[in-house]
Amino acid sequence: MAFYDSPQLTDLYQLTMVQSYLDHGMNDKAVFEFFVRKLPSRRNFMVAAGLEPLLNFLTQARFSDEELEYLANSGFFRSNLIDYLSKFRFSGQVDAMPEGTLFFANEPVVRITASLPEAQLIETRLINLLQLPTLVATKAARCRLAAADKLLVDFGLRRAHGAEAGMQASRASYIAGFDGTSNVLAGQQYGIPIFGTMAHAYIQAHDSETDAFRHFADSQPDNLVLLIDTYDTCRGAERVIKLAEQLKAEGKSVKAVRIDSGELGHEAIKVRDRLDRSGHSEIGIFASSSVDEYLLEHLGQQQAPIDGYGIGTSLTTSEDAPFLNCAYKLQEYAGIPRRKRSHGKATWPGCKQVYRHVKDDGQLAFDQLCLETEKPENGQPLLQPVMLEGKRLGAQESFDTLRKRVKQQLLMLTPALANLSQQACLELNISQSLQELTRQTDERFND
Amino acid sequence: MAFYDSPQLTDLYQLTMVQSYLDHGMNDKAVFEFFVRKLPSRRNFMVAAGLEPLLNFLTQARFSDEELEYLANSGFFRSNLIDYLSKFRFSGQVDAMPEGTLFFANEPVVRITASLPEAQLIETRLINLLQLPTLVATKAARCRLAAADKLLVDFGLRRAHGAEAGMQASRASYIAGFDGTSNVLAGQQYGIPIFGTMAHAYIQAHDSETDAFRHFADSQPDNLVLLIDTYDTCRGAERVIKLAEQLKAEGKSVKAVRIDSGELGHEAIKVRDRLDRSGHSEIGIFASSSVDEYLLEHLGQQQAPIDGYGIGTSLTTSEDAPFLNCAYKLQEYAGIPRRKRSHGKATWPGCKQVYRHVKDDGQLAFDQLCLETEKPENGQPLLQPVMLEGKRLGAQESFDTLRKRVKQQLLMLTPALANLSQQACLELNISQSLQELTRQTDERFND
Repeated sequence: MAFYDSPQLTDLYQLTMVQSYLDHGMNDKAVFEFFVRKLPSRRNFMVAAGLEPLLNFLTQARFSDEELEYLANSGFFRSNLIDYLSKFRFSGQVDAMPEGTLFFANEPVVRITASLPEAQLIETRLINLLQLPTLVATKAARCRLAAADKLLVDFGLRRAHGAEAGMQASRASYIAGFDGTSNVLAGQQYGIPIFGTMAHAYIQAHDSETDAFRHFADSQPDNLVLLIDTYDTCRGAERVIKLAEQLKAEGKSVKAVRIDSGELGHEAIKVRDRLDRSGHSEIGIFASSSVDEYLLEHLGQQQAPIDGYGIGTSLTTSEDAPFLNCAYKLQEYAGIPRRKRSHGKATWPGCKQVYRHVKDDGQLAFDQLCLETEKPENGQPLLQPVMLEGKRLGAQESFDTLRKRVKQQLLMLTPALANLSQQACLELNISQSLQELTRQTDERFND
Repeated sequence: MAFYDSPQLTDLYQLTMVQSYLDHGMNDKAVFEFFVRKLPSRRNFMVAAGLEPLLNFLTQARFSDEELEYLANSGFFRSNLIDYLSKFRFSGQVDAMPEGTLFFANEPVVRITASLPEAQLIETRLINLLQLPTLVATKAARCRLAAADKLLVDFGLRRAHGAEAGMQASRASYIAGFDGTSNVLAGQQYGIPIFGTMAHAYIQAHDSETDAFRHFADSQPDNLVLLIDTYDTCRGAERVIKLAEQLKAEGKSVKAVRIDSGELGHEAIKVRDRLDRSGHSEIGIFASSSVDEYLLEHLGQQQAPIDGYGIGTSLTTSEDAPFLNCAYKLQEYAGIPRRKRSHGKATWPGCKQVYRHVKDDGQLAFDQLCLETEKPENGQPLLQPVMLEGKRLGAQESFDTLRKRVKQQLLMLTPALANLSQQACLELNISQSLQELTRQTDERFND
């Protein structure tokens, strides 16, 4: 996986800036924070994800000889930069919200403390590694809120934006409460349960749907989910019933049927009725095709007789919010707090921490943004040290831990925050000290 | 890049189907076609892209021992499948529209002819490799239509969905008419021109904007684009003017300023005025921040004094159309045409070709969808053979060829099709023979 670890996967300006930092001896300690400026309009919370892959990247990032040669010949750089990059190892500190933590706008999610060139160099890939998993984990959590305890499976690899997106999406959706994925490589590499049976092509390749069902029963007796909508959903269901009768005699059974087109709730009612009337209430119904949290909520309200869902495109592309207004900004350099004041993009200066306040009933009350040096009496600090001098602290968190964390945190959402369509936001209290520091910083840089 | 070539990056159902095909000796020739069912609502045409990476994948796809071991122990498969996969090499035929070809709904863009298990096995990654490049090339072409000959640079790596998406986006946008990318690895691996100067962090890390500008001029004298909106855009412009005066004495010059916030047209007018009044009409203005084709069109109508744009998120995520309603469907097996009739997802059966018809003035007239075996007298066939028995035909097309193709084809769009906001579609004529075959196919599979 050398491709992924390459720090050359970056924006050119990171390197031109580092060239200038080196030229001018600007090697002091810098603090950068990754945060989301404003949540997408249909998101009341985000689920932090992507930290584990980021820590892997930071541990393994090296420039190869071939890469250095390209840079040396690019016309942009001098040998002091190439020398620096050839020795580059990330040796900084990382503080972060653990994966699976719910977070809100303007809260630092990951904080990097390192020499200015090091902290600068990792910006592009850091954002690239954190944004998509966070988007997908959030979408998956919303699906889980809408689906209660129905089976949810990631079907979105094909329409994910490339290979890495597909892998990240399988992992992020599993953390956020999905039951598994169709992505075989994610099954192998991450140990996520895999699901899958047949496509329409399988039915079409046979001369009749009956033959196709029978063949599949022979080849996958323990994983018998039959796709029934290739030609006509109701006739497909009738054929499944016939097959189920035959299989009974062989001591085998049909696990479920899958419906992949039409109005899913309507189709499921018809199919459930046929299955039940023929005495096959043991055969489940699995549905796919343009499923998202809004459809899940609608089908739930209808009490549609569907036992599980395959969720594809809407999940892996985070279709209704395909990007985050996120940034990684310099907040302190050489001990002096800094901030950007650009129109609509101003930041809070200094090295910061977020404290979470919870009501007596366990629901979220508000978050407080304050300086790392403040130690408020109340609230729970969300950023934890996870890397020191380039070395990871503690072991990788298990899926079990991560999944429990998300589940537990979703229970802390107020009904307003848990609403999938109506906008609401958690109060972010800005500490007095941070407000004062902001005023001082503006005075200092008001040249 | 072993990760990318792995055919294990697939949906489980591809493998369960292949298990059954092998069990039942279903190894005859199959024809699958990749097409888009319906264009996104804000797209009147698509630009085909991603074929080159697909051909690379097909040439290199192998299952590793580790992967086969995982599958063997997964509980889904028997040894005949594992044996088959251990020897898997794609040995089929590929016919495709050359990259950069404009295409429309229901037109086969890539056609695979191979044994059923082979053709089935590659489905997931084929879609995954074709969708995003096509989305990004289309978005980039729309930006080019809106921007006339202004400089356009891909700035979207950080918010692309993972590493591969960033790489694919750099390549696809360059094919479709961008001038380059900020993505250094894309510069190295593909030979695309790279662009970039400084971020706000660079300015903030200095005690004053004046120092920052001076330092950058020392380190990047030949690439001097200065970001002026960190604190106050107009004051930033004044400082650039002062620096330009100093640099003049040293025989150096400022190439451009960059504005990355606020209302770009408005800010550019103010800055242009200041630069011109001080005699610096040679200093260009480069703008970024939430730029897409709609803003480009708006700024063009306003005649905003902006010479070039960095386009990020909207490009690499194809923000307003983050996925394609695309599919890869079985159209023929063992010499018999097939089609899916699922509600809203029906396909045209058989092995097909698209003929393009052009008016005397060079603009698109209509496309015809017909059977591969038909040889209509008029029109240009769009699908070309590119791989035979698993081997590529001809050399990789150069960027020069691809860029010229897109440029030329965009000129063939009618004003209605070239409109970025109003929906229009090119007529797709269905040949008599194809209509007749569809009727026959439905009769045959009407069991």
